Amino acid sequence: MGRIITLLTDFGDADGFVGAMRGVILSRAPGCRLVDLAHHVPRGDVAKAGRVLARAAAHFPPGTVHCVVVDPGVGSDRRAVAVGAGGMAFIAPDNGVLGPVLAELGDAFRAHVITHPDAMRRAVSHTFHGRDVFAPAAAWLAAGGAIEGIGPAAGPLVELPVPAVAVDGDRRIGRVVEVDHYGNLITDIPAAGLPARVAVHLGGTRLVGPRPAYAAVDSGALVLVVGSLGTLEVAVRDGSAAGRLKLAAGAPCIVEPLPAESGA
Amino acid sequence: MGRIITLLTDFGDADGFVGAMRGVILSRAPGCRLVDLAHHVPRGDVAKAGRVLARAAAHFPPGTVHCVVVDPGVGSDRRAVAVGAGGMAFIAPDNGVLGPVLAELGDAFRAHVITHPDAMRRAVSHTFHGRDVFAPAAAWLAAGGAIEGIGPAAGPLVELPVPAVAVDGDRRIGRVVEVDHYGNLITDIPAAGLPARVAVHLGGTRLVGPRPAYAAVDSGALVLVVGSLGTLEVAVRDGSAAGRLKLAAGAPCIVEPLPAESGA
Amino acid sequence: MGRIITLLTDFGDADGFVGAMRGVILSRAPGCRLVDLAHHVPRGDVAKAGRVLARAAAHFPPGTVHCVVVDPGVGSDRRAVAVGAGGMAFIAPDNGVLGPVLAELGDAFRAHVITHPDAMRRAVSHTFHGRDVFAPAAAWLAAGGAIEGIGPAAGPLVELPVPAVAVDGDRRIGRVVEVDHYGNLITDIPAAGLPARVAVHLGGTRLVGPRPAYAAVDSGALVLVVGSLGTLEVAVRDGSAAGRLKLAAGAPCIVEPLPAESGA
Repeated sequence: MGRIITLLTDFGDADGFVGAMRGVILSRAPGCRLVDLAHHVPRGDVAKAGRVLARAAAHFPPGTVHCVVVDPGVGSDRRAVAVGAGGMAFIAPDNGVLGPVLAELGDAFRAHVITHPDAMRRAVSHTFHGRDVFAPAAAWLAAGGAIEGIGPAAGPLVELPVPAVAVDGDRRIGRVVEVDHYGNLITDIPAAGLPARVAVHLGGTRLVGPRPAYAAVDSGALVLVVGSLGTLEVAVRDGSAAGRLKLAAGAPCIVEPLPAESGA
Repeated sequence: MGRIITLLTDFGDADGFVGAMRGVILSRAPGCRLVDLAHHVPRGDVAKAGRVLARAAAHFPPGTVHCVVVDPGVGSDRRAVAVGAGGMAFIAPDNGVLGPVLAELGDAFRAHVITHPDAMRRAVSHTFHGRDVFAPAAAWLAAGGAIEGIGPAAGPLVELPVPAVAVDGDRRIGRVVEVDHYGNLITDIPAAGLPARVAVHLGGTRLVGPRPAYAAVDSGALVLVVGSLGTLEVAVRDGSAAGRLKLAAGAPCIVEPLPAESGA
Repeated sequence: MGRIITLLTDFGDADGFVGAMRGVILSRAPGCRLVDLAHHVPRGDVAKAGRVLARAAAHFPPGTVHCVVVDPGVGSDRRAVAVGAGGMAFIAPDNGVLGPVLAELGDAFRAHVITHPDAMRRAVSHTFHGRDVFAPAAAWLAAGGAIEGIGPAAGPLVELPVPAVAVDGDRRIGRVVEVDHYGNLITDIPAAGLPARVAVHLGGTRLVGPRPAYAAVDSGALVLVVGSLGTLEVAVRDGSAAGRLKLAAGAPCIVEPLPAESGA
């Protein structure tokens, strides 16, 4: 079985941009296995792409090469890097997109700037490094190349600012960090460490929970749950909380403890 | 060649939810082949997902494992099941989504509730069973597990109500059961058994046909055809019948026979 | 490793139409490798599909079979063809969709009409030749069939009209030929042969460039660049030029030379 190469882009599915990358990879690493992480990341949204990568990458087997092209700075002097961490490799623009997954995999990683001429196409455009740099670099690694051989050590990588959850007495002040396909509002406030019953203030609404599942409330009702990454999440059962509350990523969210219910 | 695992979800392509499932599967069944059925099923639309599965699944070779995650009841007490039918296996929530494909494959099937600890992740969230239950269960089967070994026999499965086409003299009274990507209105009225020329009443419009193809009428015109599953379908050539007639799934549709045309 | 079959359609990802094709192919050519080019080509947009195919197909290794189903004339008397060019094979409706990729691969190609009964399903619907003709034909080639054996020589293929870029003194008069996922306006005017500095007139706006990259201007500003296929392209950094200028494919575009800047 060949090495797995995953693809994560904001290219959509209408233009053949991902198709061109797949062709480049299969021509250079014929034995590899192509797998998609996502291609409808909002255009240029590096922070969201970082979260998607953190959500999916660590589930893959060792040896996987993850190729990330959410790259609003294409053609500028931002660097293209190859990073090894947790037994896997990452190919990406050096724009902070790797921050969340590297934090999840642990602090030890090695990063190199992609400069080896065999790890890119001979002619490199100024607008499509997915095809010209990132795809060939991923194929180069999957075909047996070593991260250390792809170019000079990168030194520190660009980091996106990640605001910390603030602690104010027994309140936590965080924010919505992501709106998913269902319109669920995913916050950065970990459920671990909170009491079993809290109140969340979000966009003028107060919600008590967390409840055990979306289905714990009636269809159309707001519900506070613990999301799949372990943080608090606000949803509308069979609907969109983002649409209902007219909120987007960045909205502040305050959590305060409540006493356990007597009864129930 | 490894076993084929297909994926059918309403997860979209922006968040990496399907990517996480793919990673879980490839880590647990490294030799399998991942194939997509669809991922933009309307959110939580179990009836539509059932139709998509019936449309696609039976074309796959024996031994295929179909993994379906359209699961608005995630985290509730709805069961997760593994079902064998027609030489294939199905992993899904027990919410009626398997009804149409099981009807198509014939009545004989065996269903078991997924309880084996090796067929799920050690920690199971309340919001993402695609990653924590359905993907590992599909991998477990693809890696050689037997449906009978995945848990106790399930007994009867949940069934979605499927209204029958009514017969009123020589008229048939059915409904639009699906609107596809083109805005075509797919009805539940089989063309087999109808005369060669009928009139369809739908949303205040009367259409005569069926015509041999969409292209039998001018661009922009409504046309009645026999769709790819053998039922009557109303389309607008190069346009959207759902948009034109402002109809959605559920709209009633009446068919009456017409005498054969003299001439033509 | 089996042969690669790529899929390019306007089927979207909600109905399982592509899923049905994948099943048909894997049942008939179990060893092949399925790869997607794109599935959200605008419905029935043959010209756009031709550009997507030209953008992606040539990057694949020799022996690849490209299966294209953007087919507004399905069920009419338009032909289904198999075409060999550049060491690859193409399966498509004969509606002009192959024109751009055949031009790119060079003029030598051989085209045959698909008539062999083993290269289609036994029952062929009037509305879904992706499943009933194109998928089985692609599988038939991938399983070892020869283009010459799939049916009689096709003679000339249907060609879409491609307006030439007009030359008016030292001005070039072309048009927007494509709007991509980012809202970038891709023109048909090659950058090669133009002076280093030009002015583009497009939708009432005048832009000077080309600039080296999208990131050469501030966020939200219009920018003229050389796109990934070597033609002039107008973009808005971190935004949509099509939305800003309210332009679509077909909009005229005039380029005039400018003297090189003194200084910079």
